[in-house]
Amino acid sequence: MSLLVLGTVALDNVKTPSGKRRNMLGGSAAHFAMSARFFTQVNLVAVIGKDFPGQYIRFLKSRRINLASLRVGEGKSFRWNGEYKKEDLNSALTLATELGVLAGFIPQIEDHQLVIPNIFLANIDPDIQIGLLQKMKKPKLVGLDSMNLWINTKVRSLRKLLKIVDLFVVNDAEARLLTGEHNLIRATRRLRSLGPELIVVKKGEHGVLFYSDSVKFSFPSYPVEEVVDPTGAGDTFAGGFMGYLSKERKINAKALKKAVLYGTTIASFNVEGFGMEKTSRLTMPKINSRMEQLRQFISL
Amino acid sequence: MSLLVLGTVALDNVKTPSGKRRNMLGGSAAHFAMSARFFTQVNLVAVIGKDFPGQYIRFLKSRRINLASLRVGEGKSFRWNGEYKKEDLNSALTLATELGVLAGFIPQIEDHQLVIPNIFLANIDPDIQIGLLQKMKKPKLVGLDSMNLWINTKVRSLRKLLKIVDLFVVNDAEARLLTGEHNLIRATRRLRSLGPELIVVKKGEHGVLFYSDSVKFSFPSYPVEEVVDPTGAGDTFAGGFMGYLSKERKINAKALKKAVLYGTTIASFNVEGFGMEKTSRLTMPKINSRMEQLRQFISL
Repeated sequence: MSLLVLGTVALDNVKTPSGKRRNMLGGSAAHFAMSARFFTQVNLVAVIGKDFPGQYIRFLKSRRINLASLRVGEGKSFRWNGEYKKEDLNSALTLATELGVLAGFIPQIEDHQLVIPNIFLANIDPDIQIGLLQKMKKPKLVGLDSMNLWINTKVRSLRKLLKIVDLFVVNDAEARLLTGEHNLIRATRRLRSLGPELIVVKKGEHGVLFYSDSVKFSFPSYPVEEVVDPTGAGDTFAGGFMGYLSKERKINAKALKKAVLYGTTIASFNVEGFGMEKTSRLTMPKINSRMEQLRQFISL
Repeated sequence: MSLLVLGTVALDNVKTPSGKRRNMLGGSAAHFAMSARFFTQVNLVAVIGKDFPGQYIRFLKSRRINLASLRVGEGKSFRWNGEYKKEDLNSALTLATELGVLAGFIPQIEDHQLVIPNIFLANIDPDIQIGLLQKMKKPKLVGLDSMNLWINTKVRSLRKLLKIVDLFVVNDAEARLLTGEHNLIRATRRLRSLGPELIVVKKGEHGVLFYSDSVKFSFPSYPVEEVVDPTGAGDTFAGGFMGYLSKERKINAKALKKAVLYGTTIASFNVEGFGMEKTSRLTMPKINSRMEQLRQFISL
């Protein structure tokens, strides 16, 4: 069934040990969509500025992402400048953000999109996430992502959201920050007590920890030998995970594990190139082939 | 078949977020033996000082560890003072070491031990490791552990050893330090090129990466909710891993995976108590029961 993602569409300046790029297409919703598109129709809800390159719009369309609710706001596009150091490719250093059109963004979606059952609230201001979610008429599976900024500045809105979403996708540092628990197993248990039935903790190169009342597991990541640019890896993971679940009828242990494997696999491609260099050229056979390698690598 | 381990037997002062302990029985060979004993006869080769508590000798004997080559040297026992901070329980901060009898230690073993086929060179000065290995008459499987100190101060001896051992057990930080490669997959490949056929990279709470020409895999660790004292976790892992392999006839993928599972399981008990509090009271049924939980937790 179809999937709607709310988040950012950004212009990224990124510096990593492998080089740097300017004005790349980025943002949480864009990376998510570029990954989820392999499983279902993805409806993107975001805002861009009048300065946004037309080639990026055409590019997203060419990947069959539905842009009916991609609004063009008054002002400049959202920009993110970040850097990754060789010693810790898991953590981005934010050098600058320019909110531009994001300030004051109120998502408006097409009427026919109001009944989309699978909803992912990718990283964006939690008040914007709440605003959209309240409009949706038939939510079936609602996932949420966030970031340290919102944990530090808007934790009340975030906690409100956690009470109503089904799935929380979070990285290890955010899980620790939000719960005050350093031990990741205890932190994950605490996240569950905040509301979401399904908790996915992303540990970067160390893989993923999944936690629900009835299903708990941990998988390592795919062994990437050259991490070029980790930007969007978490969103790419979430896109594969949520995209796969959106087309599954039953969300049981088998489906959840397969969803983590898909998310992990597509994210492993993401980090091998700048921005969407790799994920934009992927095909389902390439994904399945690497996923089989991953299975071999982590099977008992 | 029986197993010989060379390393340290120490008196540890340890401080962790859970508390502190003084004069605990510790040391690389002691922790290794306390774990490997579940699989085979363990012959411990080490030196202690005249001040070493008799109760610890009796304790080791009670765990059926062969102490025929545990020498009593002139001087004081080796001591290690360490601390772990809440933010990084994976890394020990060494506050002080007192070499005592370790300075000038030349391992001497009983004649009948010279033909022991399985040999583990636990962490100790690499020149001492070389000295012992050259005496051994029928080595079949030789494993090696080391630490950052030796990588920084005796890398030539260490490289010499790497050319002649079969197995290298190393933690992630050491793998990076020794190879100069930050990416762990590339670092592991480089370690293989230094000599050992079997490479085991210990990643603490993130599990283990195994690498050989024909077998490659990665397993997460057991989800421990309360890490009390990580001291000796790596040695405990190595003891379970090497202990299990010592009794297997064929070292194939199946045996290697099971060996990693045993090492991981016993190490998970080790970190739940100070020193050998937990591992000294373990039984094979307890180990197998937790190993089954671990299997469930990481199975596809």
